[in-house]
Amino acid sequence: MSMSKMSRLVAVCSSIGLAAGGVAYTAYKGGEPVHARVTCSNQYKFPAGSNYPDILQHRNYMAQVLTPEMYNKLRSRTTPHGCTFDECIQPGVDNPSNPHFKEVGCIAGDEESYEVFSEFFDKVIDERHEGYKPWDKHIKDMDYTKLKGGCLDDKFVLSSRVRTGRAIRGLRLPPSCTRAERREVERVIVEALNTLHGEFKGRYYPLKKMAAEEHQKLVEEGFMFGKPTAPQYVAAGMTRDWPDARGLWANDSKNFLVWINERDHARIISMQKGGNIAQTFMRYCKGVNLLEQEISKKGWDFMWNEHLGYMATSPADLGTGMRAGVHIKIPMLSKDPRFDLFLQAMHLQKRGTGGTDSPIVDDVYDISNSQRLGKSEVELMQVLIKGVEDIIKMEKELIKGGTIDRLLPASVRDLYNKKNKTA
Amino acid sequence: MSMSKMSRLVAVCSSIGLAAGGVAYTAYKGGEPVHARVTCSNQYKFPAGSNYPDILQHRNYMAQVLTPEMYNKLRSRTTPHGCTFDECIQPGVDNPSNPHFKEVGCIAGDEESYEVFSEFFDKVIDERHEGYKPWDKHIKDMDYTKLKGGCLDDKFVLSSRVRTGRAIRGLRLPPSCTRAERREVERVIVEALNTLHGEFKGRYYPLKKMAAEEHQKLVEEGFMFGKPTAPQYVAAGMTRDWPDARGLWANDSKNFLVWINERDHARIISMQKGGNIAQTFMRYCKGVNLLEQEISKKGWDFMWNEHLGYMATSPADLGTGMRAGVHIKIPMLSKDPRFDLFLQAMHLQKRGTGGTDSPIVDDVYDISNSQRLGKSEVELMQVLIKGVEDIIKMEKELIKGGTIDRLLPASVRDLYNKKNKTA
Repeated sequence: MSMSKMSRLVAVCSSIGLAAGGVAYTAYKGGEPVHARVTCSNQYKFPAGSNYPDILQHRNYMAQVLTPEMYNKLRSRTTPHGCTFDECIQPGVDNPSNPHFKEVGCIAGDEESYEVFSEFFDKVIDERHEGYKPWDKHIKDMDYTKLKGGCLDDKFVLSSRVRTGRAIRGLRLPPSCTRAERREVERVIVEALNTLHGEFKGRYYPLKKMAAEEHQKLVEEGFMFGKPTAPQYVAAGMTRDWPDARGLWANDSKNFLVWINERDHARIISMQKGGNIAQTFMRYCKGVNLLEQEISKKGWDFMWNEHLGYMATSPADLGTGMRAGVHIKIPMLSKDPRFDLFLQAMHLQKRGTGGTDSPIVDDVYDISNSQRLGKSEVELMQVLIKGVEDIIKMEKELIKGGTIDRLLPASVRDLYNKKNKTA
Repeated sequence: MSMSKMSRLVAVCSSIGLAAGGVAYTAYKGGEPVHARVTCSNQYKFPAGSNYPDILQHRNYMAQVLTPEMYNKLRSRTTPHGCTFDECIQPGVDNPSNPHFKEVGCIAGDEESYEVFSEFFDKVIDERHEGYKPWDKHIKDMDYTKLKGGCLDDKFVLSSRVRTGRAIRGLRLPPSCTRAERREVERVIVEALNTLHGEFKGRYYPLKKMAAEEHQKLVEEGFMFGKPTAPQYVAAGMTRDWPDARGLWANDSKNFLVWINERDHARIISMQKGGNIAQTFMRYCKGVNLLEQEISKKGWDFMWNEHLGYMATSPADLGTGMRAGVHIKIPMLSKDPRFDLFLQAMHLQKRGTGGTDSPIVDDVYDISNSQRLGKSEVELMQVLIKGVEDIIKMEKELIKGGTIDRLLPASVRDLYNKKNKTA
């Protein structure tokens, strides 16, 4: 940049009445042009209070834990990759509440967000993950041979699915990444997956080279993701540059899938028809481990630490990042007024089969583990298996015209009776 | 921040394999906490080419002028307020084309964007504003007494409207502003407007304190804006923090309106029923000038320079920022195959009455000037008046069963005949 250009810039800067806090000339090597970065930003000339979001009516975890004092402390920090606290809370500021469930209302722009803004994220994690404390350690256990049971009755269970998210250390997460980083994520993961063989031999379907009809078909079959339209994803900036560097990697049997650059760097999915979730989990563990080995060979790591486990864009998906679930047809039990209390007591959650917020069609529910962090993969699978086995037992009993009173945990019966008394 | 916290940060930074480019301790005065900003960002460790957007299929002005060489030069510059080139082009990267018209595909994050990224914006402005060059000077003329004519036939013209955008110098534009800046815009403009009297006496209706039904009613009556849903606004980040610091200021007669913090800091609108656009323009000039005087008294300025005139978020709205238009019912002329050629030749544009992209209802068109920059307000008004007068003449002729051949400019007849020959 010429000196005359430079003085024009400084002139502009001072003509608008801002003190030139500092003028830094940065000369980049390797062909990058020498340029000036004039740092007289007015971003912080307003006190923190004047920039505090209006979240009094908000109903998400972000709004629950954020205070003006905390905001004042965090808003001027920046992570090594340049992520700010305001970027982390923006989705929750823009989306006050969800009628179906309580959202976290925040995202991490990079791995370091969880550390640099820990005063905030520690509290969100504590609230969202049932009292998980900053000194707690996450346990990883993907030894599928330890699993007991898991061959669930195909008469009720239509399909089984285990998914997780993984992120590549050193590259920013989808809300904050550049196009170059997103493409690097795609390259690193797809190159690693393409080395796999046997049941994991597969290929990559980049979204950019996909015909609209082919994409639509893959979405309808449940293999592929569509462009996210949920306002919280859009507010987080996760749909930028769509469809650049997004795609589906699938093995030949299409029972091991990796979504590239949707809401996490990688969403890894093992799925199959019927109730053999033990087999689904075995394939999940093998595939995820193979991918981790392959990226390590090239010098890459997944984002991970012993407190938070595997790291994800959403604080809701930390730890195992694992959601193991079944699609199960339960026309009888689902109408029992104690069904929701039972799910809660068993650490399970229900959804429609079309994803979060989707309606229930044909009495088929997506039942999955509700916990992610502080419990191992094997533990969470065991919780799910026990829960679904109980659900099937109760459904059978109801079909026979019997009662499920003795099959429900005592705590659920008590809670239900107490609620009915007070009501 | 304690030293142990600091070493944790540096540890994180080095553990992820990034060179710590520099660790800057920044101590803010005035109660702002001492904090560390670790600057080992990897934003530029990728070469520019790897971050270049995939815009080969795009059809907007941004994609037309952007080249990898230009991107390489601009992507690492930052404006004094911290706006980047990538922020400016993101709306056009995310929205390849609009079926109805060619969009600019870019925004300015602040006044200085037009200067710091001038290699890019100069070309967009040249293409969008019919060859307006970097050395051209914009002319301002809001002397409404110079206007000739402007009492248009009420039998055809249902309503008249003149609007512009204005921005407060020193505060970032809606795509990039903080909540504090947005609230400051609201404060500065509303305080100034509240000092007006006579026909400009009015009050402020902040969106946050408005009942949903009241808001809906104001939108339907054409006085107020709704939450922007157009993907290019969302991609530009202009809906962040909605409805914070947005609102409508209106005089008592509701014929002089100011939209606060929609897509510009202020959108100023003069409107009334019937065809007296001369009166609409007079009120527009008086009101806009009064507002400018009032903010000046407090030490504020509108963003303006002699090359670009008044500055706006969109490069399409530079100069006068003025769109003067009428709602006109022309069932006959609008069906003539030469109508669009006529509008183009007269520097006019048509829309539906519900805004850009809205459908035509009941043969009523919104006809307005298509130019903004390089011509004065009085000149643009004169162009509109002449065009609408011609439209009314032709419509009358067609109603009588006559022909409009001799009423059309020769250039339009020639162009139409040439097109039909080649077709």
